Amino acid sequence: MKIIEQARLAKEASLRLASTPLEQKNRALSSAVELIRQNREIILAENSKDLKQAEKGKLTESLYKRLILNDRKIDQLVAGIEDVIRLPDPVGRVQLERELDQNLVLTRVSVPIGVIGVIFESRPDALVQISSLCLKSGNAAILKGGSEALYSNRILFELLRRAAEETDARFKSSLQLVETREDITELLKLDQYIDLMIPRGSNELVKSIQENTRIAVLGHTEGVCHLYIDREADPQMAVEVAYDAKCQYPAVCNSIETLLVHGDLAAEVLPLLAEKLNMVELRGDERCRQLIKAEAATEIDWCTEYNDLILAIRVVDSLEEAVSHINTYGSRHTDGIITGNRDRANEFMQQVDSASVMWNCSTRFADGFRYGLGAEVGISTNKIHARGPVGLEGLTTYKFKLAGRGHLVADYVEGKKKFSHRDRQ
Amino acid sequence: MKIIEQARLAKEASLRLASTPLEQKNRALSSAVELIRQNREIILAENSKDLKQAEKGKLTESLYKRLILNDRKIDQLVAGIEDVIRLPDPVGRVQLERELDQNLVLTRVSVPIGVIGVIFESRPDALVQISSLCLKSGNAAILKGGSEALYSNRILFELLRRAAEETDARFKSSLQLVETREDITELLKLDQYIDLMIPRGSNELVKSIQENTRIAVLGHTEGVCHLYIDREADPQMAVEVAYDAKCQYPAVCNSIETLLVHGDLAAEVLPLLAEKLNMVELRGDERCRQLIKAEAATEIDWCTEYNDLILAIRVVDSLEEAVSHINTYGSRHTDGIITGNRDRANEFMQQVDSASVMWNCSTRFADGFRYGLGAEVGISTNKIHARGPVGLEGLTTYKFKLAGRGHLVADYVEGKKKFSHRDRQ
Repeated sequence: MKIIEQARLAKEASLRLASTPLEQKNRALSSAVELIRQNREIILAENSKDLKQAEKGKLTESLYKRLILNDRKIDQLVAGIEDVIRLPDPVGRVQLERELDQNLVLTRVSVPIGVIGVIFESRPDALVQISSLCLKSGNAAILKGGSEALYSNRILFELLRRAAEETDARFKSSLQLVETREDITELLKLDQYIDLMIPRGSNELVKSIQENTRIAVLGHTEGVCHLYIDREADPQMAVEVAYDAKCQYPAVCNSIETLLVHGDLAAEVLPLLAEKLNMVELRGDERCRQLIKAEAATEIDWCTEYNDLILAIRVVDSLEEAVSHINTYGSRHTDGIITGNRDRANEFMQQVDSASVMWNCSTRFADGFRYGLGAEVGISTNKIHARGPVGLEGLTTYKFKLAGRGHLVADYVEGKKKFSHRDRQ
Repeated sequence: MKIIEQARLAKEASLRLASTPLEQKNRALSSAVELIRQNREIILAENSKDLKQAEKGKLTESLYKRLILNDRKIDQLVAGIEDVIRLPDPVGRVQLERELDQNLVLTRVSVPIGVIGVIFESRPDALVQISSLCLKSGNAAILKGGSEALYSNRILFELLRRAAEETDARFKSSLQLVETREDITELLKLDQYIDLMIPRGSNELVKSIQENTRIAVLGHTEGVCHLYIDREADPQMAVEVAYDAKCQYPAVCNSIETLLVHGDLAAEVLPLLAEKLNMVELRGDERCRQLIKAEAATEIDWCTEYNDLILAIRVVDSLEEAVSHINTYGSRHTDGIITGNRDRANEFMQQVDSASVMWNCSTRFADGFRYGLGAEVGISTNKIHARGPVGLEGLTTYKFKLAGRGHLVADYVEGKKKFSHRDRQ
């Protein structure tokens, strides 16, 4: 089938999905759990085909690891779907209820967005997770997985599709799989059918999607996150948080890449830091290097996402200078301050133009699960639609419904009637 | 100054604006009211230069009318700013407050978007209105008016700029004016500085902006709105609402272009309709033309926004057929149903994929003022970010703030601590 035809069918399905009750959506998800459990052996067999292919190819160690499915990973997949079943329905929430006049009542209700295009690399578990979230939120999804996971994706997709379509005819065609790189080029042109693109993978993937489509894109390209140690910081806390934010999991987007430290505290805090972070390669500015051993940082270091045990360090003379550095070199993802002074913390959190701003805690908390959003659809560095960690709410939009008894605008324009605009709580 | 430099300055200003208190924003707006009042004669003189120019040119009657400023229009301008002053601050609203764990508190707070690019045609009053809304919401704005209003725009811009900058240094460079058509091309490339584009004008203007930028665009290209008269409709109400929706102001986007009528009621309602709408040119399908006098409607009629006293009519056999017609040919703007049956109304309102859906009332109610949104930033047919009539809320995004006491992610990953995720109300 041609991609455009798949997208058209997904669009049609999305109109039916919008009025599918929660019960049916959860039944379809339960059925997916059943089918995955029953077909465990087949899934593993298909996955081993991908692994065999990968051994011959040139997959990196970490990509190969992500590709592997085993019993434990399948259990996690199933547990993930069960988590989604337990989430409340994101659709049908009344966001506003307002009497415009007697018997003329406006409501604003959450509804699915429509058709979501998802592009992900390697990990076949991403297919299951994002499909469950789309199904729960009443969206149709067009899925494009990495070619290295071809067989794994096909079997998982087939099980999910069957679970949905056998539960309720309304789900027919609501999940679509596309497989080739050329298909992506086609997908990105279909803004008449696809409402939102979610790329999941490397910064390069996200950037290339953003640059080649007019469809809205939910995702973050980079996580150049900062920790600023203020002159009123507790040095011990500062070092502990810096260690957590850099070393607990350096490969992820919400770990820090640059540490800014106030000049008044630098002589005290930097030696402590160098000791605690002794496994980290430090790159400092001039003033930093007068205090501790570090490579010389260049302009490029300030805007680099290392995703590794490397940390750039700069000594600043004021909170303003720290804020200005972050707004200049950062990626508007997550940035934190350590200070004992609430006013200075508020100033920092207000002026730093990032999706998440932290005070006296680790940047690593910026995450949908830790924020209690139930499930993470993605993290967004956009300001439009959804920002920061995005939960199921990010897969919904809203609709205005107005109910009257033959009300005419002419009566209000001519002054015969007046609006009351009374909100109902 | 080069456009890119103007945009860079606007971006810088936007970071300062984010923490400007309501009081200062309102003082700047009050000062604008004063300055416009004091400079009424100068404004009229500058406007007359534009009018003189226009007389020589080839401006249409309606564009010429929109260009005119007079005492009454200036009073309206001033009243418009005073309305904006009375609106509550859209910035700093706490949307979520959640204890993640003891002394680890997450808040989600509304913040300005940043830099808004506004492109409008002809009407110099649009410059004042949109600048006031941007100022109130703490956004910087880059304004491009129509060249036919060059002198009027310059003087109004200058007064607003002075009002803002003399009130508070933080407003410096927050309003920028650009003047030539080539400047638009430049603006549309500056997605590193501009967060949202708002085109105000013809469908063609909006479409051309959407097609030529990667910046998010708030606006609607077309308003192909429908009224469906169900088989359980009160014929009298149906005809009254159809009259209001078509004739009360046919040139606007929320007036109807196509009427769908259920076959069971067509013989009764269509003759009544033809009588009441006798000033309207009717274009019907075969079954319609067997009942009343009408031109033959073609496929093109179903997707045309007439913006005029022309109405396409189609007889359908079911609610499903009506919904399908609307989802196929409509522009997802505003569509209504007339029916005495609540279940059928709900079905229609759920399945029609439009920003506003109406039951037993006129589509003409779809409007920011009538919906009680305080001010209308625009009407959006997008699903991403803002949909339907958009108030000041549409000029904001949000930010997550997390405050702790040295909290580390490692403690939660290692199981030493657990999240409580308790919402505060």
